[in-house]
Amino acid sequence: MMTALEKLFAQNKNGKFVCVGLDTDVEKIPLCLRSTKDSTLNFNRAIIDATYKQAAAFKINFAFYEKDGYEGMKNLSETIKHIPPDNLIIADVKRGDIGNTSQMYAKSVFEYYKCDAVTLNPLMGKDSLDPFLNHSNKLNFILALTSNKGANDFEKLQLENGKFLYQFIIEKVKEWNLNTNCGIVFGATKSIELENNMELIDDLPVLLPGVGAQGGSVEDVVNSFISAKRDGFLINISRGIIYKSRNEDFADQARVEITRVNEVITRCLNL
Amino acid sequence: MMTALEKLFAQNKNGKFVCVGLDTDVEKIPLCLRSTKDSTLNFNRAIIDATYKQAAAFKINFAFYEKDGYEGMKNLSETIKHIPPDNLIIADVKRGDIGNTSQMYAKSVFEYYKCDAVTLNPLMGKDSLDPFLNHSNKLNFILALTSNKGANDFEKLQLENGKFLYQFIIEKVKEWNLNTNCGIVFGATKSIELENNMELIDDLPVLLPGVGAQGGSVEDVVNSFISAKRDGFLINISRGIIYKSRNEDFADQARVEITRVNEVITRCLNL
Repeated sequence: MMTALEKLFAQNKNGKFVCVGLDTDVEKIPLCLRSTKDSTLNFNRAIIDATYKQAAAFKINFAFYEKDGYEGMKNLSETIKHIPPDNLIIADVKRGDIGNTSQMYAKSVFEYYKCDAVTLNPLMGKDSLDPFLNHSNKLNFILALTSNKGANDFEKLQLENGKFLYQFIIEKVKEWNLNTNCGIVFGATKSIELENNMELIDDLPVLLPGVGAQGGSVEDVVNSFISAKRDGFLINISRGIIYKSRNEDFADQARVEITRVNEVITRCLNL
Repeated sequence: MMTALEKLFAQNKNGKFVCVGLDTDVEKIPLCLRSTKDSTLNFNRAIIDATYKQAAAFKINFAFYEKDGYEGMKNLSETIKHIPPDNLIIADVKRGDIGNTSQMYAKSVFEYYKCDAVTLNPLMGKDSLDPFLNHSNKLNFILALTSNKGANDFEKLQLENGKFLYQFIIEKVKEWNLNTNCGIVFGATKSIELENNMELIDDLPVLLPGVGAQGGSVEDVVNSFISAKRDGFLINISRGIIYKSRNEDFADQARVEITRVNEVITRCLNL
């Protein structure tokens, strides 16, 4: 069995860097599907079938399923079962809590839902993440600098020692990476900060949300990694792919869009 | 309809300050219940029936239900339905994400599960919490200084301006409190910091976990609030109440324990 990190590198070696975000909102899926039973699940299956060959990973945003209670969690579970084994499955949950609680969250995403990777919130410190980090074959993407405006409120606070909080978080993640199963989340909308922190980030795997609806640039992200002579990253696109078309051709258009993004990436890599 | 804040004050006026934490782990409930169908739910119902008259609130730790997938979420939903309307229901989820995602989490805890209050993680900044703060009749307990050891990693970092991160978070929460629906989470294990920050906390409602299994002192917490001449707080006890006995008398023993804690509080208040 490959570890999650090995899976990520295998995908990158095949030229695949896009993570498709399944933030599926029933109010945004095509009308033709909305009236069917299991509409969310049917939509997700169609998107997965259309894009899995081009995608490195699928990121499941649990919030969009939790809001429908246990019916939603059934959809989540069935969606995950539909993802082929070569694609990395990321539970986008941003969890972090005291030890015995994080233990339960880790059970949920890694054992019950069988995801390969997770997004975590480090505010409560190392012991709040340990139950996840103890899973040495999984991959833990820890929030460093997020793609939203609110990143300025705390993540970009300057510490006594002159560093920004998000830089200190990255330092800590490197310390915590004893099982080589840690990575970071870095917003694709923060391309200047990304470029300036590639040395600090070193060889940590990076998950980059914020391309598409949030305005981040694929080229900027890829160029930072090319300059640093490294791979081990995933560019997440959610709404930009899954809602590319709101009509019956949504799955085809999702494939067209991920193919287009892959071509942009290939062009950058070959320049 | 009372707002969640009014509900909290009404409970406090009646001398009720204890929040019972339903962190129900099927491996820790009495053997006599474990073999029954719906064992988690039966355990919760028995605990609620035994303690609701003494309790101000019930805090549901979603992690313990999420780990069982949709079956767990059904238990969560049924547990919430069993809580009488006078008790405040707190969704302990520590969520926080970009706007459209937090929107879904807010829908989940406030609309689907119909909780009165929620715990939130502020790391991603104000826009990550806005979808919760927009619910003016709900109560949002935002993490400030948590009860665990890892609180030292980031929450107690010193900023450029000499303040600790958790103190700056408290300042921000006061700024964000336009709907009078914000509060903070402050670990009962951090009694010296609590005492020293009562002026900063001002009149924000406070949820204090960490009493019991984690070692915080009920007397220390209550005395800080008495000195500050204010109420509007909840002392959470989870394992210390629900697992007070591992035998058939677990519900009676839970009631004995919350009664004992209430007497400690009453004694402090009347000194």
